[in-house]
Amino acid sequence: MGKSIRYGMVGGHLNAFIGDVHRKAINFDPRAEFVSGCFSSNAEKNLETGEVYCLDQDRVYADYLEMAEKESSRPDGIDFVSIVTPNATHYQIAKAFLEKGIHVVCEKPLCFTIEEAEELVALSKEKDLLFAVTYTYTGYTMSKVIKEMIAQGKIGNIIAVNGEYLQEWLIDELSTEAKGKQDLSVWRKDPKLSGISNCVGDIGTHIENYVHYVTGLEIKRVAATMNTFGHPLDLNANILVEYENNINGAYWCSQVAAGKLNGLAIRIYGDEGSIEWEQHYPDYAKYTPKGQPTQIISRGQSYLGDGAATQSRLPSGHPEGLFVGFANIYRNYISALIKKKNGEKLADDDLDFPSVTDGLNGVRFVHAVIDSGKNDSAWRHVR
Amino acid sequence: MGKSIRYGMVGGHLNAFIGDVHRKAINFDPRAEFVSGCFSSNAEKNLETGEVYCLDQDRVYADYLEMAEKESSRPDGIDFVSIVTPNATHYQIAKAFLEKGIHVVCEKPLCFTIEEAEELVALSKEKDLLFAVTYTYTGYTMSKVIKEMIAQGKIGNIIAVNGEYLQEWLIDELSTEAKGKQDLSVWRKDPKLSGISNCVGDIGTHIENYVHYVTGLEIKRVAATMNTFGHPLDLNANILVEYENNINGAYWCSQVAAGKLNGLAIRIYGDEGSIEWEQHYPDYAKYTPKGQPTQIISRGQSYLGDGAATQSRLPSGHPEGLFVGFANIYRNYISALIKKKNGEKLADDDLDFPSVTDGLNGVRFVHAVIDSGKNDSAWRHVR
Amino acid sequence: MGKSIRYGMVGGHLNAFIGDVHRKAINFDPRAEFVSGCFSSNAEKNLETGEVYCLDQDRVYADYLEMAEKESSRPDGIDFVSIVTPNATHYQIAKAFLEKGIHVVCEKPLCFTIEEAEELVALSKEKDLLFAVTYTYTGYTMSKVIKEMIAQGKIGNIIAVNGEYLQEWLIDELSTEAKGKQDLSVWRKDPKLSGISNCVGDIGTHIENYVHYVTGLEIKRVAATMNTFGHPLDLNANILVEYENNINGAYWCSQVAAGKLNGLAIRIYGDEGSIEWEQHYPDYAKYTPKGQPTQIISRGQSYLGDGAATQSRLPSGHPEGLFVGFANIYRNYISALIKKKNGEKLADDDLDFPSVTDGLNGVRFVHAVIDSGKNDSAWRHVR
Amino acid sequence: MGKSIRYGMVGGHLNAFIGDVHRKAINFDPRAEFVSGCFSSNAEKNLETGEVYCLDQDRVYADYLEMAEKESSRPDGIDFVSIVTPNATHYQIAKAFLEKGIHVVCEKPLCFTIEEAEELVALSKEKDLLFAVTYTYTGYTMSKVIKEMIAQGKIGNIIAVNGEYLQEWLIDELSTEAKGKQDLSVWRKDPKLSGISNCVGDIGTHIENYVHYVTGLEIKRVAATMNTFGHPLDLNANILVEYENNINGAYWCSQVAAGKLNGLAIRIYGDEGSIEWEQHYPDYAKYTPKGQPTQIISRGQSYLGDGAATQSRLPSGHPEGLFVGFANIYRNYISALIKKKNGEKLADDDLDFPSVTDGLNGVRFVHAVIDSGKNDSAWRHVR
Repeated sequence: MGKSIRYGMVGGHLNAFIGDVHRKAINFDPRAEFVSGCFSSNAEKNLETGEVYCLDQDRVYADYLEMAEKESSRPDGIDFVSIVTPNATHYQIAKAFLEKGIHVVCEKPLCFTIEEAEELVALSKEKDLLFAVTYTYTGYTMSKVIKEMIAQGKIGNIIAVNGEYLQEWLIDELSTEAKGKQDLSVWRKDPKLSGISNCVGDIGTHIENYVHYVTGLEIKRVAATMNTFGHPLDLNANILVEYENNINGAYWCSQVAAGKLNGLAIRIYGDEGSIEWEQHYPDYAKYTPKGQPTQIISRGQSYLGDGAATQSRLPSGHPEGLFVGFANIYRNYISALIKKKNGEKLADDDLDFPSVTDGLNGVRFVHAVIDSGKNDSAWRHVR
Repeated sequence: MGKSIRYGMVGGHLNAFIGDVHRKAINFDPRAEFVSGCFSSNAEKNLETGEVYCLDQDRVYADYLEMAEKESSRPDGIDFVSIVTPNATHYQIAKAFLEKGIHVVCEKPLCFTIEEAEELVALSKEKDLLFAVTYTYTGYTMSKVIKEMIAQGKIGNIIAVNGEYLQEWLIDELSTEAKGKQDLSVWRKDPKLSGISNCVGDIGTHIENYVHYVTGLEIKRVAATMNTFGHPLDLNANILVEYENNINGAYWCSQVAAGKLNGLAIRIYGDEGSIEWEQHYPDYAKYTPKGQPTQIISRGQSYLGDGAATQSRLPSGHPEGLFVGFANIYRNYISALIKKKNGEKLADDDLDFPSVTDGLNGVRFVHAVIDSGKNDSAWRHVR
Repeated sequence: MGKSIRYGMVGGHLNAFIGDVHRKAINFDPRAEFVSGCFSSNAEKNLETGEVYCLDQDRVYADYLEMAEKESSRPDGIDFVSIVTPNATHYQIAKAFLEKGIHVVCEKPLCFTIEEAEELVALSKEKDLLFAVTYTYTGYTMSKVIKEMIAQGKIGNIIAVNGEYLQEWLIDELSTEAKGKQDLSVWRKDPKLSGISNCVGDIGTHIENYVHYVTGLEIKRVAATMNTFGHPLDLNANILVEYENNINGAYWCSQVAAGKLNGLAIRIYGDEGSIEWEQHYPDYAKYTPKGQPTQIISRGQSYLGDGAATQSRLPSGHPEGLFVGFANIYRNYISALIKKKNGEKLADDDLDFPSVTDGLNGVRFVHAVIDSGKNDSAWRHVR
Repeated sequence: MGKSIRYGMVGGHLNAFIGDVHRKAINFDPRAEFVSGCFSSNAEKNLETGEVYCLDQDRVYADYLEMAEKESSRPDGIDFVSIVTPNATHYQIAKAFLEKGIHVVCEKPLCFTIEEAEELVALSKEKDLLFAVTYTYTGYTMSKVIKEMIAQGKIGNIIAVNGEYLQEWLIDELSTEAKGKQDLSVWRKDPKLSGISNCVGDIGTHIENYVHYVTGLEIKRVAATMNTFGHPLDLNANILVEYENNINGAYWCSQVAAGKLNGLAIRIYGDEGSIEWEQHYPDYAKYTPKGQPTQIISRGQSYLGDGAATQSRLPSGHPEGLFVGFANIYRNYISALIKKKNGEKLADDDLDFPSVTDGLNGVRFVHAVIDSGKNDSAWRHVR
């Protein structure tokens, strides 16, 4: 007897970081069988990866187009593909599999241009395929708790938003000697490989996606300052945000902030309370009901009721960590896929994973921010 | 034998909060004798306050003009006056004492219009008088440590700034029923009593002053979103900042942020490190030298060397608190005054207290922010 | 017109630390006039201190016995004396003033032997004098809030207690070369000057006093390990505690704990909730009602009701600090003294300051702990 | 091609919590194939679990003895078994597999009596089998960093230890009505099912194991207070510890501490610095070199050098979480097993996982603590 779902992967050879995270995440729930891949343009690496995962040799492909073609033709072909290749290749690979009728999970960013993103949205709709984009932080159990609490009115009407995503790993790029040097992060500075943005595209877009996920707020327009510090692409940006309901927020992203490892921090303020969440400690959030003390809330606690908190995979106090965040996205995606395969109709609740539309929104956000940054911080509409 | 310096107070009757803080702060160092006052327009309260502090009855004045006149005529008249009256009266009272040759300490904001502020700057210069404006947070020992560390190059060249000052005390103003109601905070909503701004003028300006104090950065221009939530004046504002050296910062102030008591938090990032300080825990700061772990530094510790840390009034680990912040401003102000009375020349180091020029900069900042906020976040120059 | 109460000080010359804290603390409320002192055995220092505080020269005494004698004979003599001399002299000085009918505030420890302590308790009772011992941490507003919450049953019946007081300032004493050396802290190692204990007597006793203050629990017996690391007196101790109601606690005090500045931390657990307080952040406490999230509570907030929280001297979010802790002890002591002078009867609530009985309990605790520590951790009764 | 190692599991049917954690942990590294099991005494549950994991039906056994027998006879039999059954059965099951020459991983506690534990140690030695006991917290990357730093002398000679493990989940047991009630946790109160101890055996032993792992310190004797609050077994205990080098520590474990989810916190003090670690935030530790500021250190950072920090599975700032802690124990265990199968000699470094000897030490510790607790806190030797 086999598992219900079969999947393949493009990218993610043995030494690649993020592909391995995806495989572990899928593995958290024993429902999807790993059967096929095109892991690397290097033939040796490609085959070696297949061997370690005990794949049939003839389902380890040298070429993703061949993989899409052949897998879509077999009776036991893959149900979905995970795309974990360099950013510049997402569009073409996703398109290839969609065209062959294969469901897609793709690392973020979805792609570089708004046109490409709109095309992928349209194509997945036309083909009736499930397309997830792995904005990973919405997968944390607490992210779902926060979304639920806001939807339940626990903080009332939202009146202000603050989001930041700060890292330090590119700080050496600020020194003069680094600017001309070929280094590890060189592709981040090359528009051909990174698109029009480095920092906003890589991490700023997580703020945008996270805030949208937990609040449902739609951004109307943005005004931004952008700092390249002499490099071709942005390393730091401050962004004023106006939402459709006319309230404001401010986002800040930076890859040159000394002391910040992976500092995504989101704070949502309402007229009846506030909620704050920090990625470094993802199992907890700070909740302040108006006029009351600030509470440290934890997923998995009975005071949170029968909703999202019960999706915890570990008792309270045991850190779930990033792998669980990823695994939760795949859990929901694969559950939806199983329902779909079984001919069941999918409700909104079944689609609790970041979608290709979220991917499109991300691309639009990045374009608006960078355009504002290049035009003296003029307001730019996101749609 | 008496103390070296004599002072009086305008405002600050027994039930007034901030006047009492000023008196306690002055009292921390036994160098200034409290001899005169005009505490309240209510005659009874006025006299009662004088009695409690054992003042001569004939030096408790019904009128601040009379006080300025008479005290300036006596051989044992006051050296300086502390002005702790409602904001709308600062300008006229300060002017009256300056004109009589009496040194001035004035609560913030200095005044409401740029013209008034410039006049007070000019007048204090013309009369050669010491004029302090009590931006209290720069008085904390750690604020001086941070200023010193930045000046010593501990974080290199500054590349980004983030400041916020969040409070929750006006959150009830967001509910519909509050909007027409006469309440305790009504004067905050009356432009006659609060000038052109409520939130930015009251707390946003502390961010501006603090960042300038510790970094020396001069603001070139600002672009802001401002939220009144249906009230005449601002309750929340997000501010993009451009400094003269072309780097950027972002400031956020709010009086409607549930869970925030008095949340002034300042973060300065450089190309060699960063420093973060939060007013709730003023004895500590987080310092991250590039490539090293974040350190929790504390005033009063020998690893900080022989500079500002030695100005601690308590051993490390014993919280100094707000009274000490105020007391340090007065310590430096009174030390300067004693030197001046003794005919000594004052060096820059002697003037380590917020000055009338800082007060002017605050007024300019508020005007630029509010103007931008009313004009679709257009950039506005601060000077 | 003068202030209601007059006081003098023994010890506390200009360069002495704790005497100055006492003076500032008394000064917080303008009710006690500083009129007399015997500040130092060094005549010059003694007189200089008197001058700075504008005392009459003939009330600056070379000898504390003379001071007690003369002040008790004058019609305008001092109402109380503050004793801030080295520990070894507390007993004799306190006794001298009590015998002359003068109320006493004395730094902790009250004295070194149980007999001395009992004598001072008896004497103050016999003479009907108010005797405070400045265990300063119970003076923090939050300490009063915590005491009130526990009394109100907010955590139910107490089932466990944990207290620690950790400092690092004597860590250099651990290195071999320090052991024979004459150094700043040498008096700490000399039983003649420090009594039978260094660490437990200096800081362990604060845990004992604080827990008793907030919970009302009486200690029955203790069992301890004690570490001298080659010195004559203790530098570190772990203490098992059994209270009269048969529940247990554990206390830990150390002066050699790297990274701990002044780490007094008290945690009280009940069958309906828990409260935790840390001296480094004295304005806050963590309160967990059973089955609910942990709350960060702050003095001065309306959700705490009309009790102790209203005694705040500053709005929430503005750190009160150690001076306020001291000032609150003096506030209550002087209020009681005024009532007593006015012939009013004192209720229990009027005596909310650490008393000579608390001082005796401290001495008993220290003796029991050290005795246990020297006898292989055998249980020792405290009374 | 198959994976190098094959494993089976006893216990761990689909609804069982900890068995699933073990499977996910093993799955983190694609080296061990899951081929056999005896998951439940309930035949349906047993088979269903096998099906979900796609096991051959004839390798899903109704009886663990049959499983040990048959798997040890097949050429492709399991290399190791994971035992995740109720505590009272660990001994007999582990013994059965050892006797058949199968390597063992067993949940803690190893067993209930010292004799049983010694027998398992002897048997695994005699049979030359690798036996791990999953004290999971030593598996966190930071635990390895801390062990390494202490071994490198970063905190000098250890002079004091403090460990606590606090939970709140049994607090309802304190109410009178709970004491007679049959409830979910009833087995915890039944000596037949829980052995001689509940709280010390379940969580106190984690403190003992963790401190030993990071410091290498051997416990000589313990003296404890134990609180049952009217139940047959302990719910709270305070433990004085004396190590072989004559320094002291104190441990506290409780399952009735309101607000504590899974509060394992370990603090190690040396004469050159200190290190503190808290399980709720396992990716970080506080390190204070003597005379320097406290540092927040993070696994995966280059300032930690080429040692343990490089074993991180995620970049700094991405929480690894409990699954990774477990996975690291299995990573090292399976690596050792592969070496052993390949005939390589195992060095000490190859055995970086909690062993059957650690399991024995845990049993000895529990017995000594409970014995002391029942005998008025008399010192009891651990070995």
